[in-house]
Amino acid sequence: MIRINENYLKLKASYLFSDIAKRVAAHQQRRPEPAVIRLGIGDVTRALPDTCIAAFHEAVDEMAADATFRGYGPEQGYDFLREAIAENDFRARGADIDADEIFVSDGAKCDTGNIQELFASDVRIAIPDPVYPVYLDTNVMAGRSGTFRDGRYEGIVYLDGTADNGFIPDLPAEPVDLIYLCFPNNPTGATISKEQLKTWVDFAAANRAIILYDAAYEAFIRDDALPHSIYEIDGARNVAIEFRSFSKTAGFTGTRCAYTVVPKSLMAYTASGESHSVHRLWNRRHSTKFNGVSYPVQRAAAAIYTDAGKRQVAELIQGYMANADIIRSEMQTLGYDCIGGENAPYIWVATKGDSWAFFDMLLEKAGVVCTPGAGFGTCGEGYIRISAFNSRENVTAAMDRIRRSLKRQCHLEMTNG
Amino acid sequence: MIRINENYLKLKASYLFSDIAKRVAAHQQRRPEPAVIRLGIGDVTRALPDTCIAAFHEAVDEMAADATFRGYGPEQGYDFLREAIAENDFRARGADIDADEIFVSDGAKCDTGNIQELFASDVRIAIPDPVYPVYLDTNVMAGRSGTFRDGRYEGIVYLDGTADNGFIPDLPAEPVDLIYLCFPNNPTGATISKEQLKTWVDFAAANRAIILYDAAYEAFIRDDALPHSIYEIDGARNVAIEFRSFSKTAGFTGTRCAYTVVPKSLMAYTASGESHSVHRLWNRRHSTKFNGVSYPVQRAAAAIYTDAGKRQVAELIQGYMANADIIRSEMQTLGYDCIGGENAPYIWVATKGDSWAFFDMLLEKAGVVCTPGAGFGTCGEGYIRISAFNSRENVTAAMDRIRRSLKRQCHLEMTNG
Repeated sequence: MIRINENYLKLKASYLFSDIAKRVAAHQQRRPEPAVIRLGIGDVTRALPDTCIAAFHEAVDEMAADATFRGYGPEQGYDFLREAIAENDFRARGADIDADEIFVSDGAKCDTGNIQELFASDVRIAIPDPVYPVYLDTNVMAGRSGTFRDGRYEGIVYLDGTADNGFIPDLPAEPVDLIYLCFPNNPTGATISKEQLKTWVDFAAANRAIILYDAAYEAFIRDDALPHSIYEIDGARNVAIEFRSFSKTAGFTGTRCAYTVVPKSLMAYTASGESHSVHRLWNRRHSTKFNGVSYPVQRAAAAIYTDAGKRQVAELIQGYMANADIIRSEMQTLGYDCIGGENAPYIWVATKGDSWAFFDMLLEKAGVVCTPGAGFGTCGEGYIRISAFNSRENVTAAMDRIRRSLKRQCHLEMTNG
Repeated sequence: MIRINENYLKLKASYLFSDIAKRVAAHQQRRPEPAVIRLGIGDVTRALPDTCIAAFHEAVDEMAADATFRGYGPEQGYDFLREAIAENDFRARGADIDADEIFVSDGAKCDTGNIQELFASDVRIAIPDPVYPVYLDTNVMAGRSGTFRDGRYEGIVYLDGTADNGFIPDLPAEPVDLIYLCFPNNPTGATISKEQLKTWVDFAAANRAIILYDAAYEAFIRDDALPHSIYEIDGARNVAIEFRSFSKTAGFTGTRCAYTVVPKSLMAYTASGESHSVHRLWNRRHSTKFNGVSYPVQRAAAAIYTDAGKRQVAELIQGYMANADIIRSEMQTLGYDCIGGENAPYIWVATKGDSWAFFDMLLEKAGVVCTPGAGFGTCGEGYIRISAFNSRENVTAAMDRIRRSLKRQCHLEMTNG
């Protein structure tokens, strides 16, 4: 009899964004007009940069003739892309990363989800709260947790992000083996300084732990003092894997390209203490279970690193960050405490109450979709995430609606109160 | 201390195609001229069909304007593609498959590699020999095998394909839970009749087992009596998952698009016998660890199902199959027993001796790269796989070289003997 992986049964019944989609659909059915404005799921809305489009077309044309056609590419990605990444994203910032330490993939979601396969099923996992659900769910599927109880999985070490610590978790009080970190943070938009990140690198070195560093939002950093990569920190090559994505940087959410950095100096161990190269393990996984990213997509991604590409990406990012400024400033004016939005496309807003209730209220009264913080973990309760990924027009309209409805609500409460 | 998944250490040191690449590189360094002709790795060489190129460009243009831009798509694939697949690949052949049973992905390698995650770590796995290495390696990584000894992993039930059974394995003598089958077969090119396939479906039903049916080569079937899909067999909806790919069908190896069919009626069980929908489990995995296929790539794939697309794909396939006819006929004329090549792009040639020695000889004397059968399992010893994926010119040149070198070798043996 074929038996299932019963760890799947431990997963909470449904996925955050599916829940949101259902509530939005129900709302739209009840009230088709005005159309809802989506500042919920972190999806980009603006066109790909022109240079990417030109390179994309050119590569599609190569696929149209036998002489220039490309079949299977290297599973790890084409050298033209890996070299552009190593040079521009790392060496240009003083981070010592070689092209052959870059693994190109079709998404940071896949990579952050798959990476845990390399490690023993009973390693101790530390995961932030609030958090991008994928880190947690993929470890639950792999059997590294107990059951879900009171909003948390047993057997996971949670790293609390709270107003008190500015949503930069404290170092774990107990030894852990695998640590997920994400900065600029999704969902809170919090950023980490080099000094703070150094304490994590040192902790990992002291505990022979590995840090899984999700830097998918590094392109949104405006403060020059903040690290874009964990490899800007001394010693990180020996303790960290970094995840990057073109999704938010250059609008690739529907085009699909990302990469993972696994330094060759990174080691993990057998139970008997024998060291093994994590680069070799990931290479084995990548070449066994993956067949490389679409060639035209890799060409489109490489175009980001041309002079014109860099300029266009910077404009794209500035456009979204101007939205972030509008959202943050409006919510603060309305009397809500915010973090994020300064070096990240997310604004994390304290709702002074239940986060799903605030989500429902914004949907109902303003027709605006945000993401309830509780969906990201127990520490997310009392917050919502507002995303800056939309057109200026929609962001302005959404903030107008929010202003009007929150003032009306406030007025009603005062009248009733 | 971060410990590795020690199952990775059980894997044979290197991957078949890496071994081949190394030997070819060494040969090329010794003898750069004439250039080697590759009939080894099963990679297509001809341009994408014009209709796919046109649709690809059009979709890239959609990504160039905010108004038509696409961000995250559905993880399961766009409806336009899922519906075209269900209609053309299944319902048109009398197989009862709905669009929402289709999961679009970036490769059958990924899907055949990832599917095992849904099942318990101690289910009994049956895998053909010879076989596409991914089925085996991904189960070894997941801990479903013992150590590798005398060419085989302990704990796996091997399904022998031999000249005696025409490379259609016999039903397992013992009960098994998860059965990998691939027809038209990679590497042997063998095909299975509806009657033979029915015995497998019945076996699976009787044992409450699941069949993982890899039909990546169905487009190469010329014999109308052969099944293209396992769902042409009564009862298969309750016991089978099917994998398909556009890689070989339409030249998508470098473009990346495939799909997996998981019928909603397919069940698997908890240890206590409770039944669960495999469709729901795969949907959960797919939406947690995958973010959908690139939108322009899905548009290019959907173009295959237009009238012009079908015609162009048929021409592409006919071109490769004409190559297969040339290879098969030449090898038979030279006195080698062959199977495959009639409804599959692979010709499986009995080498009358060690398969790596024959590989080295063909590389050395003829400058032609094939794949040694031993790389696909112990039953592959004594065979090589020759692939029909190349230009007519290269296939003709390769067969000329093979003819001359095999005749010369034969002459030398007679002279020395």
